Amino acid sequence: MGKNLTKRNEDYSKWYNELVVKADLAENSGVRGCMVIKPYGFAIWEKMQAGLDKMFKETGHENAYFPLFIPKSYLSKEASHVEGFAKECAVVTHYRLKNAEDGSGIIVDPDAKLEEELIVRPTSETIIWDTYRKWIQSYRDLPLLINQWANVVRWEMRTRLFLRTAEFLWQEGHTAHATEAEAIAEAEQMMNVYADFAENHMAMPVIKGIKTESERFAGAIETYCIEALMQDGKALQAGTSHFLGQNFAKAFDVKFANKEGKQDYVWATSWGVSTRLVGALIMTHSDDNGLVLPPKLAPIQVVIVPIYKGLDQLDDISEKVEPLVKELRAKGISVKFDKRDTHKPGFKFNEYELKGVPVRLAIGKRDMENGTYEVARRDTLEKEIVPMDEVVPKIEFLLEDIQRNIYQKAFDFRKDRITEVENYEEFKEVLEHKGGFISAHWDGTVETEERIKEETKATIRCIPIDAKTEVGACIITGKPSSKRVLFAKAY
Amino acid sequence: MGKNLTKRNEDYSKWYNELVVKADLAENSGVRGCMVIKPYGFAIWEKMQAGLDKMFKETGHENAYFPLFIPKSYLSKEASHVEGFAKECAVVTHYRLKNAEDGSGIIVDPDAKLEEELIVRPTSETIIWDTYRKWIQSYRDLPLLINQWANVVRWEMRTRLFLRTAEFLWQEGHTAHATEAEAIAEAEQMMNVYADFAENHMAMPVIKGIKTESERFAGAIETYCIEALMQDGKALQAGTSHFLGQNFAKAFDVKFANKEGKQDYVWATSWGVSTRLVGALIMTHSDDNGLVLPPKLAPIQVVIVPIYKGLDQLDDISEKVEPLVKELRAKGISVKFDKRDTHKPGFKFNEYELKGVPVRLAIGKRDMENGTYEVARRDTLEKEIVPMDEVVPKIEFLLEDIQRNIYQKAFDFRKDRITEVENYEEFKEVLEHKGGFISAHWDGTVETEERIKEETKATIRCIPIDAKTEVGACIITGKPSSKRVLFAKAY
Ligand SMILES: [Zn+2]
Ligand SMILES: [Zn+2]
Repeated sequence: MGKNLTKRNEDYSKWYNELVVKADLAENSGVRGCMVIKPYGFAIWEKMQAGLDKMFKETGHENAYFPLFIPKSYLSKEASHVEGFAKECAVVTHYRLKNAEDGSGIIVDPDAKLEEELIVRPTSETIIWDTYRKWIQSYRDLPLLINQWANVVRWEMRTRLFLRTAEFLWQEGHTAHATEAEAIAEAEQMMNVYADFAENHMAMPVIKGIKTESERFAGAIETYCIEALMQDGKALQAGTSHFLGQNFAKAFDVKFANKEGKQDYVWATSWGVSTRLVGALIMTHSDDNGLVLPPKLAPIQVVIVPIYKGLDQLDDISEKVEPLVKELRAKGISVKFDKRDTHKPGFKFNEYELKGVPVRLAIGKRDMENGTYEVARRDTLEKEIVPMDEVVPKIEFLLEDIQRNIYQKAFDFRKDRITEVENYEEFKEVLEHKGGFISAHWDGTVETEERIKEETKATIRCIPIDAKTEVGACIITGKPSSKRVLFAKAY
Repeated sequence: MGKNLTKRNEDYSKWYNELVVKADLAENSGVRGCMVIKPYGFAIWEKMQAGLDKMFKETGHENAYFPLFIPKSYLSKEASHVEGFAKECAVVTHYRLKNAEDGSGIIVDPDAKLEEELIVRPTSETIIWDTYRKWIQSYRDLPLLINQWANVVRWEMRTRLFLRTAEFLWQEGHTAHATEAEAIAEAEQMMNVYADFAENHMAMPVIKGIKTESERFAGAIETYCIEALMQDGKALQAGTSHFLGQNFAKAFDVKFANKEGKQDYVWATSWGVSTRLVGALIMTHSDDNGLVLPPKLAPIQVVIVPIYKGLDQLDDISEKVEPLVKELRAKGISVKFDKRDTHKPGFKFNEYELKGVPVRLAIGKRDMENGTYEVARRDTLEKEIVPMDEVVPKIEFLLEDIQRNIYQKAFDFRKDRITEVENYEEFKEVLEHKGGFISAHWDGTVETEERIKEETKATIRCIPIDAKTEVGACIITGKPSSKRVLFAKAY
């Protein structure tokens, strides 16, 4: 396997597309805009799911499942939601196919037209709040803390594997609360859960913040987000958590009796992350040799490649390696011993480098004589010779060290790319030549935001949660501003 | 909570529908034929998924994800498949909504008509084999052992929660092999995996067999199945595994170079189980008091209900109970300590009985004085007083004993309801008065099968794998038959 991977500094976008396909993560399907997630890519998503699901359950959430289809009329019930979502949707209009009378093949049966069209869910607030009306009567039924793992469809015109696809996989949390304060606390909590997951599992530093009005979720009062920085200096929104106020409760008439017996509308949140995170993971850590995966999410954490001539040598090596495999697995480490005789060691080295396996062991005749392994780490590509009786603690150390090291590397990269600017000239300079996040004062108006977007393609990624209050002036209008916001070009 | 559950012998079907709703498993949604799986029901499905997924991985399978949509033309490529599946389907014809010009709301945008309609997958053979063509070139790429967890849609006219819904959740395995023998072995293996899961996790005895031609999957050469018996004497097909021959490889032109360099079509299998298993689980074990769940699939295995007056007493009880909760959880047992002060103990007893929690502990003032718990088991409703220092081994014993006991009970029930008959009169007698499986000789023709179905509504559930060869005569035509087959009315 020759990698022939385009270099990042030649064409970052091309590098990404090639890597996703060559590392066997995903590919385009015969259905426009829909991807096939291949086993290796899906194994990463499964590890993400497992990590997130555990965190959701630890914070009191339960999983459930709601219908794929949403009656068209439901979308119209919440005014701003319909503006945001009733656009590029997959619309089911018929429920039967039949053989054409002229024998030309199968056709849609015109007699099987639905009375009301069904929309393939782009997000599930409407169908879920239609259900919650039946589940919530009293404060005793609250809070309702539910999550769903599901597929959703948004008919995107320009798609890219993982980053923007017509169908994608995600989780969507939908919670109902008795008070405004509790709902806001929930929305903030889930932003923090996402940040924790991004930083401690994905090794991807993120900035927590809130969205401006124009970037808010359709139907939300406040949208919290985590924003990451990719290696090409573009930002990527990695997760959002919305405080929905009473908008959906009012649209779907979901009231509860409080402790005093008074009827009130329920307060809501929703929050989600998607297979987009796999794209973010790739673009945060990988290099010109292929994927670099954080050990916590790597489907294979350790690969062992035997270097041998003939089955006798392989047998000798296997005798040494198999107890090691067993020992590592007992410690919960995922190991692959690649004995395939259909491929040469060099091919295998290339393949596992491309696939981002964090630790690679090689063992040949000389190692057998010396009682050693050659141990290579994927992040720095460093190799060393390790005595057999030290190899287990070495591997354990490396798995932790790689996780820490790639986080630090991404953190330092981002740290160098948050630039404070004081005027629009500087803003455009930095955006053009350096990229990354630009921290600047803004007058808080949609007009200014819109103008900057039109002229530079940069958007306000967020108002950081930890933004200091300071006296400043908008870089466009000079109007007073008390906080800097973060601009960037974004995925 | 009054249970007010219809009794099984009054109206089994009504009992089932009520139980599913009252035990908080699922309910109908605003979308015709689509259900909402509620958290408690979904937790059972999650446990099923976890058990099955582990078994699939242990037998070498990997998960992947393929598109929700299938271009209409794909369905036509395999002749018998299109007959079976291109019928009651959800058809996507448009990809955009817009505001009506007359202000009457949102409408389907007529300008956004798809050139080719998309079908919401009823099963994924076609889209997957269209993909496999790109993945398979050589014998080195085989076997390809892939599973997908997904939602599918079949536009059913008469639906019942879990048993038959327009949208349901399932897994579908799709494998590709170099030889016919290997593919047949795979299809048989997966039938055995399903039987293992049904019997050892669900505590549901099943009969392994093969389907007759008319009951075969559309596109299969052979369909293997597991058949269970419900308490009303009707059979339920709980899982199927298909040997597809080279049908899909030929339809989608999937060839490989064998070791000798010769091109040949690939051999295929597919196999699946669905949320229907939740329905089967309910109907196998539950009683007039509510659900009875096997401990291996129970979301809550042990519930502890305190009986107290005032918070002081509750504090004392909690001091005793909390270390027990910790100890049980450390053993991997799922425990709920229900301290809610909004509901009385009697209400809670009723609720957990309805929800099928296998073991219930109660602890009140007298127990505190005596150092005991009252321990109740859900399957037999027996109660006993157990000293605190013996309660952990008691619980461990009960969880195993309940699993074993409900399997045995279901096994004995079924054993009494496999009846050998020698003529059609007897057949109709048994079917009408006793139900269950009827073991009879059949001449092997579709005509006879069809006649019996029309006259009695019984179908051939399977030709059991372990059917003895014996000399016999078809109960309808008297023609010679060498094996008995199993008839039953079925879900
Ligand atoms: Zn310049
Ligand atoms: Zn009679």
